[in-house]
Amino acid sequence: MKATGLIVEYNPFHYGHQYHFLQSKEASGADCTVAIMSGNFLQRGEPAIIDKWHRAQIALQSGIDIVLEIPYVFAVQNSDLFAKGAVLSLDALGVDSICFGSEDGSIEPFVNAHNELQVHEKEYHESLHEHLKEGLSFPEASRHAYHKIGLGDDAIDLGQPNNILGFSYTKTILDYNLNIKPMTIQRKQSGYHDETIEHKIASATSIRKEILSQGYITEEAKGSLPPLTVDALEQYRDVTGSWHEWELYFPLLQYKISTMSPEELGQIHGVEEGLEHRFKQTIHKANNFQEWMNLIKTKRYTWTRLQRTLTHILTNTKTKEIESISTINEAPYVRLLGMTNMGQQYISQQKKEMDCPLITQLHKGVHPFLTIEERAVDSYLSMFKPTIKRERRNREFMPPILP
Amino acid sequence: MKATGLIVEYNPFHYGHQYHFLQSKEASGADCTVAIMSGNFLQRGEPAIIDKWHRAQIALQSGIDIVLEIPYVFAVQNSDLFAKGAVLSLDALGVDSICFGSEDGSIEPFVNAHNELQVHEKEYHESLHEHLKEGLSFPEASRHAYHKIGLGDDAIDLGQPNNILGFSYTKTILDYNLNIKPMTIQRKQSGYHDETIEHKIASATSIRKEILSQGYITEEAKGSLPPLTVDALEQYRDVTGSWHEWELYFPLLQYKISTMSPEELGQIHGVEEGLEHRFKQTIHKANNFQEWMNLIKTKRYTWTRLQRTLTHILTNTKTKEIESISTINEAPYVRLLGMTNMGQQYISQQKKEMDCPLITQLHKGVHPFLTIEERAVDSYLSMFKPTIKRERRNREFMPPILP
Repeated sequence: MKATGLIVEYNPFHYGHQYHFLQSKEASGADCTVAIMSGNFLQRGEPAIIDKWHRAQIALQSGIDIVLEIPYVFAVQNSDLFAKGAVLSLDALGVDSICFGSEDGSIEPFVNAHNELQVHEKEYHESLHEHLKEGLSFPEASRHAYHKIGLGDDAIDLGQPNNILGFSYTKTILDYNLNIKPMTIQRKQSGYHDETIEHKIASATSIRKEILSQGYITEEAKGSLPPLTVDALEQYRDVTGSWHEWELYFPLLQYKISTMSPEELGQIHGVEEGLEHRFKQTIHKANNFQEWMNLIKTKRYTWTRLQRTLTHILTNTKTKEIESISTINEAPYVRLLGMTNMGQQYISQQKKEMDCPLITQLHKGVHPFLTIEERAVDSYLSMFKPTIKRERRNREFMPPILP
Repeated sequence: MKATGLIVEYNPFHYGHQYHFLQSKEASGADCTVAIMSGNFLQRGEPAIIDKWHRAQIALQSGIDIVLEIPYVFAVQNSDLFAKGAVLSLDALGVDSICFGSEDGSIEPFVNAHNELQVHEKEYHESLHEHLKEGLSFPEASRHAYHKIGLGDDAIDLGQPNNILGFSYTKTILDYNLNIKPMTIQRKQSGYHDETIEHKIASATSIRKEILSQGYITEEAKGSLPPLTVDALEQYRDVTGSWHEWELYFPLLQYKISTMSPEELGQIHGVEEGLEHRFKQTIHKANNFQEWMNLIKTKRYTWTRLQRTLTHILTNTKTKEIESISTINEAPYVRLLGMTNMGQQYISQQKKEMDCPLITQLHKGVHPFLTIEERAVDSYLSMFKPTIKRERRNREFMPPILP
């Protein structure tokens, strides 16, 4: 049985994701699709609009065979660590290929870029370091350094977030010498309209913006979302009273930052170079999250970088707890959220070959990262009343879901 | 100019407090009354129904000349530490007497009890230790130990909370050999009805229970509250949307306890003997604060003791930050909340004699306890929207209030 791996957030699952998934299955010739998804918090340091279980359910019902979770400690990180967490998990489950979306749809530029980087590694790092010292953000400094070693405009455009992620996936596969074929599917442009089936591709960001600002799923948004997603989003909100967004967590951030000492804040992953003082000095000056972000962002600290740090403050994730993520070279465990019958067959086949634990329920004591996972769940659910909180957190301790 | 000191919580200020204040002034022959009040959190480990500034304002408008604040680190403590924080501050401001309410109205039993305790100190401590080892709570063990050394039913009844506090005040004055005369006024019984002026004395606890459970100030409650208090309570609630009670902070406790490690919880003042595990195991089993308290209380840990610990969790107050409170033997500072003209004259007169700083605004760096004070303010205000939070916390950095 052949499997292809997809690295996803599905926040929420839309027609672009469906297209990517169907194309990947066809191109890879896989029998089984394994989507590894960020959990309740996303790579850009944001709470997912609905929780991981509901997003996994939509994926299974849309035809994905297995949904895994990227461990929180890897998910809310820069593209290289995010890729590492995702790719190593997929490798542990023995996928044959990983298929990601890119602007161009051709894998050679990614592989070539990796080769170039290996040849010019020293030069790249020197240039990167120089630009960081100038006060540039990591993505900016990195873009300059790539340009310096010839990975500029002629190669893949590493200014495009999706290309950056794709490049990180490719690098991880090649660096760790994994038995996985990197593949890419050309993304359908945002705004692409398929006249025959009357829906269009829009980015998840623009869809979220639309529904969060309007407070309901507009006709415009419905045009880009499969009915499964629309129903799941509406049902979620009917039960919980709201979707998740940073604004709802702002009071908690205010509380947390004003009651932690600068020393305590300094222990949180990502709080460095005096950010703790900047946070404490400004936290009561803003009326909402958006306003506050505009007060604290700088050339050096991008919006995304800051959001990730704030997520770690919310989840109380300390640098020393997750130091090992940069040196680890195999998956700490594989966390299974849900599967179809086909998925179940594939897992039965692979299970005996696996070198790391397969986590089907959040048992304690298996790995310290699972304690952080539980805190991420509790932070994410903090906005709900106790009964909903209890029901939702209990889900973590139950067997994986079925479609 | 002679001053008498009152140790109060005014939560909220009622006719019983007015009676105590007028009687104290008369009995002591003082020109000036100094009330030292717990701040936003009270001795029993509860948020005050309205904030300290509004409570101070009512006191000044009711005729109190000076309102000081008991430092948080002393206020949310057992009766001996509470007394120490209050009495040493009053001493620093040079009061001639301290006048407290008691069931009996006579000071001799308190002074005699102190003498007895000095004579039988070893026996008392042995007995106390023995009963604590049996698993009794401190107040229970202490009551048994007093009984053992003859401070039983014939002497003052140390089972009565007000007598316990009065005894702690007396002990502090005598132990530190302060130049203060301890005095006591007989309390009017709860339910006491003064036919001529158509109001009655009720306990602050029963008044709070009435208005918090009903959600408004009932006619029953109005019968026990001066119009000043009724107006202040109503105005407060009109602006902020609610009065303060533990139930409103329960979501924060759930968040805090589930995202702190047992080791981190163990550093909080009062978390000992495995309470951290008990808290973590039960925090999601209850639907509200009341239910949760019933799950965690034991023979050893009284409701009050637990509430104080939970307040320290809310304010992130660690044992090592406040170790010095048991050995300190003078006021770290005197915090002034408000004063009348008479109060201002008294302070001008006393200021040059003072051995510790007089804090009129919450400046940082003067004393580490003031950082904790600021955290207590931010925790207390955490339930409000950012605009109200900002306005209310700014009050801390402004000059004292006038009537």
